[in-house]
Amino acid sequence: MKIAVLPGDGIGPEIVAEAIRVLDALELPYEMESAPVGGAAYEAHGHPLPETTLKLAKDADAVLFGAVGDWKYDRLERSLRPEQAILGLRKSLGLFANFRPAICYEQLVGASSLKPELVSGLDILIIRELTGDIYFGQPRGRRSAPDGHFPGAEEAFDTMRYTRPEIERIAHVAFQAARKRSKRVTSVDKANVLETFQLWKDVVTDVAKEYPDVALDHMYVDNAAMQLVKDPKKFDVVVTGNMFGDILSDEAAMLTGSIGMLPSASLNASSQGLYEPSHGSAPDIAGKGVANPLATILSAAMMLRFSLNQAEAADRIESAVKHVLAQGLRTADIWSEGTTKVGTREMGDAVVAAI
Amino acid sequence: MKIAVLPGDGIGPEIVAEAIRVLDALELPYEMESAPVGGAAYEAHGHPLPETTLKLAKDADAVLFGAVGDWKYDRLERSLRPEQAILGLRKSLGLFANFRPAICYEQLVGASSLKPELVSGLDILIIRELTGDIYFGQPRGRRSAPDGHFPGAEEAFDTMRYTRPEIERIAHVAFQAARKRSKRVTSVDKANVLETFQLWKDVVTDVAKEYPDVALDHMYVDNAAMQLVKDPKKFDVVVTGNMFGDILSDEAAMLTGSIGMLPSASLNASSQGLYEPSHGSAPDIAGKGVANPLATILSAAMMLRFSLNQAEAADRIESAVKHVLAQGLRTADIWSEGTTKVGTREMGDAVVAAI
Ligand SMILES: CC(C)[C@H](C(=O)O)[C@@H](O)C(=O)O
Ligand SMILES: CC(C)[C@H](C(=O)O)[C@@H](O)C(=O)O
Repeated sequence: MKIAVLPGDGIGPEIVAEAIRVLDALELPYEMESAPVGGAAYEAHGHPLPETTLKLAKDADAVLFGAVGDWKYDRLERSLRPEQAILGLRKSLGLFANFRPAICYEQLVGASSLKPELVSGLDILIIRELTGDIYFGQPRGRRSAPDGHFPGAEEAFDTMRYTRPEIERIAHVAFQAARKRSKRVTSVDKANVLETFQLWKDVVTDVAKEYPDVALDHMYVDNAAMQLVKDPKKFDVVVTGNMFGDILSDEAAMLTGSIGMLPSASLNASSQGLYEPSHGSAPDIAGKGVANPLATILSAAMMLRFSLNQAEAADRIESAVKHVLAQGLRTADIWSEGTTKVGTREMGDAVVAAI
Repeated sequence: MKIAVLPGDGIGPEIVAEAIRVLDALELPYEMESAPVGGAAYEAHGHPLPETTLKLAKDADAVLFGAVGDWKYDRLERSLRPEQAILGLRKSLGLFANFRPAICYEQLVGASSLKPELVSGLDILIIRELTGDIYFGQPRGRRSAPDGHFPGAEEAFDTMRYTRPEIERIAHVAFQAARKRSKRVTSVDKANVLETFQLWKDVVTDVAKEYPDVALDHMYVDNAAMQLVKDPKKFDVVVTGNMFGDILSDEAAMLTGSIGMLPSASLNASSQGLYEPSHGSAPDIAGKGVANPLATILSAAMMLRFSLNQAEAADRIESAVKHVLAQGLRTADIWSEGTTKVGTREMGDAVVAAI
């Protein structure tokens, strides 16, 4: 088993270091190799996703990713900015299926902005298509407006696109995931306005026929953004496109109040995957040893389960994380009165000890 | 002053009727004429926005709009569905500036999903561009994919587009609105991924130079969806495009817990406007006399202020609404223990009495 480790920027290196210590504690037979990505790679090689880093990722069974980005790169031209690395990896590895759980841990219910009864027991799985939609659609660019309200004016444009097979494969992923859960899928679209999402709705409806045991409902994206706030527990598996998934998965993660706890997985058709915490690079607290490593540690567990066929080892990590929470250990982001505040390293130590 | 009244479907007719009674109580010199729109117009004339309805709207100084839509029209082809009426009105009247306040009334703080301290005193103004973006961008349609992951497959596509002058005019609206408030604007984009929103960010930054007294910050749409949940009071005026505005304004409205209270205004360059509640047609409770008419009544107040130059009359309506809330009167959607539950008509009566 080969794991490519891309720590990235900000708190990335600190939190990835703890995930590696946890993996090491499991004594599994894997090879691991690191490479710079994002701003770190730009500094070292002049590009956020250097050829060598991309090759390492492609040749691995799984990629363990920290986070990228820092305000100091805001003025670089877009193609050199850290986020391009993550877009490049998704595209080059064909990572079309993004899994983002929004789980509210019982001990952390109080950290949510929402009233406890609305989030206690919350467990949503957002499945976001990750290689299509307006993120990658061509053509795009700047030009003189060919028509519209101000013909001849300076204009920028992008293309939203989905083909039937792209929608089919992500729909299958969603229905199969729902089979292992509560057998309910909500497909989020904007079929009342967009051609792309009328096709989306049609195709998801077609694929649903192969899963008569799974209940499907359709919801417009604006309504989904509302219902997530009003009554998030109504949702189980949510499947949507790249752009809407970007927005809704972040909204759902924040509802739990503990985005520092949430892992994510991005898979391709051969179960090769990239695993990263749902939170960002948090440059403001980088290097201070206070970041929460649990989302990255839980991402490593997802990696073992989805790409490395080590479900038992994944269970061990997840149990260990529950154990440290039950012990009352908390990093600053999830700390509350009556619990014990620990740093990044101590949290890693505690998980290792629990394994 | 000419007002076109378009009650629409579901609860539309009931809530608009109360708004008209409130307007009548003010004894202002206006002419009012009604026409069907949405499903009601489809039933009567075979089209959700018949020529006669459109002409009435165009010739008026302002349009008072109820709501459109009902599940029973879901199977109609898209061009005949009720929502097309609202898109057609926006486009034909050039209503590019949509104002959607998200206000949490002190007496209704408990109705929010969020903890009281996070929403008490909340007062956000979302300004959404309403005639551009992927809502109206051409080309769009279905075709055989010219390239991409599955060339030759069935594909649907849409075009996101903004020109510099379209962004400039909505940016001016936002900065001018901010001047009358706390002098802060948050522009929401996705400049890290989309060409369209890189131009958006550039243009808003340029326009900001004409408003040195207003503070501008930029936020990615995914982050905005999170920050609205985490700490909504951080926001004052938010300006964004049509698609992101659709999602974020609904999310923000729902945060208040009382979307039945929230009005909206959509204006063109000559201050002609369409005024409608932020909530939908709620076909499930239509005809039962239980719908909350206050959002529509407050929309009528916005109409007086923005399109009919009757700020004082608008103030009277808004004070009357505050008064009935203080009296403890509540429709079912905002009712809580210890307050008096009233129906649509009684709520209208109470507002009229307070005027
Ligand atoms: C960094 C950015 C390009 C990225 C996205 O928009 O997909 C991020 O927001 C995410 O969700 O992983
Ligand atoms: C009905 C629909 C077309 C409309 C929109 O998407 O703009 C609605 O959601 C709104 O926000 O007014």
